Amino acid sequence: MNPEMTMLETSKVPGTSVYGASRESIGEVDDLIVDTVSGKVRYAVLSFGGFLGLGKSSYVIPWTSLKWDQELNGYVTGVTEEQLKSSPDLDPTSLRSRDFEQRLHTNYGAPSYWDLETRTN
Amino acid sequence: MNPEMTMLETSKVPGTSVYGASRESIGEVDDLIVDTVSGKVRYAVLSFGGFLGLGKSSYVIPWTSLKWDQELNGYVTGVTEEQLKSSPDLDPTSLRSRDFEQRLHTNYGAPSYWDLETRTN
Repeated sequence: MNPEMTMLETSKVPGTSVYGASRESIGEVDDLIVDTVSGKVRYAVLSFGGFLGLGKSSYVIPWTSLKWDQELNGYVTGVTEEQLKSSPDLDPTSLRSRDFEQRLHTNYGAPSYWDLETRTN
Repeated sequence: MNPEMTMLETSKVPGTSVYGASRESIGEVDDLIVDTVSGKVRYAVLSFGGFLGLGKSSYVIPWTSLKWDQELNGYVTGVTEEQLKSSPDLDPTSLRSRDFEQRLHTNYGAPSYWDLETRTN
């Protein structure tokens, strides 16, 4: 696969499909959250329909919980209804706290990006 | 500085200010172009006003030409009017070509992200 096939304007990201572990459609991407310094996406804001339509309208999910699938032209994730239900509530300052970020990653069983980057540098 | 201060929804990126080498306001960010696999921003789509208002309405600039400035709450870039004038035209498939990407980075004197990432991995 040519990685350049996957360049996308972030303005076109909303509406990108999200699939579950069994490759069933479960929702879509509403937004991405990027670190403006490094230019790395850290979180995705997802909305779910159907059985995953729970209390909140959207969920902030660690980027490391998502994997691009070129064939599906969308993201595949293993997040579960339990994880969505137990996810901590965010306020506008939540992502300034590494403790909060850790809780969020732990909730989703997602590798923390700061560990991954320490390892590769 | 706390790097978590810099988390931003990509939907809020349009309108972010861009400053020139002397920290004068020269334009704004219209969009970002992200690699959907790695989640890394590769290019920014910028528009310029004033003396940099040239033939095109927007320009695709390598991400490595921009540096976030927390104090200015925007990006600083050293791109020149000459570089904008000599920048190659894009069509929707241009960024699938590494040769084109190389030309674009060379035009702006910007380090190529694929070299940077080979070095750090």
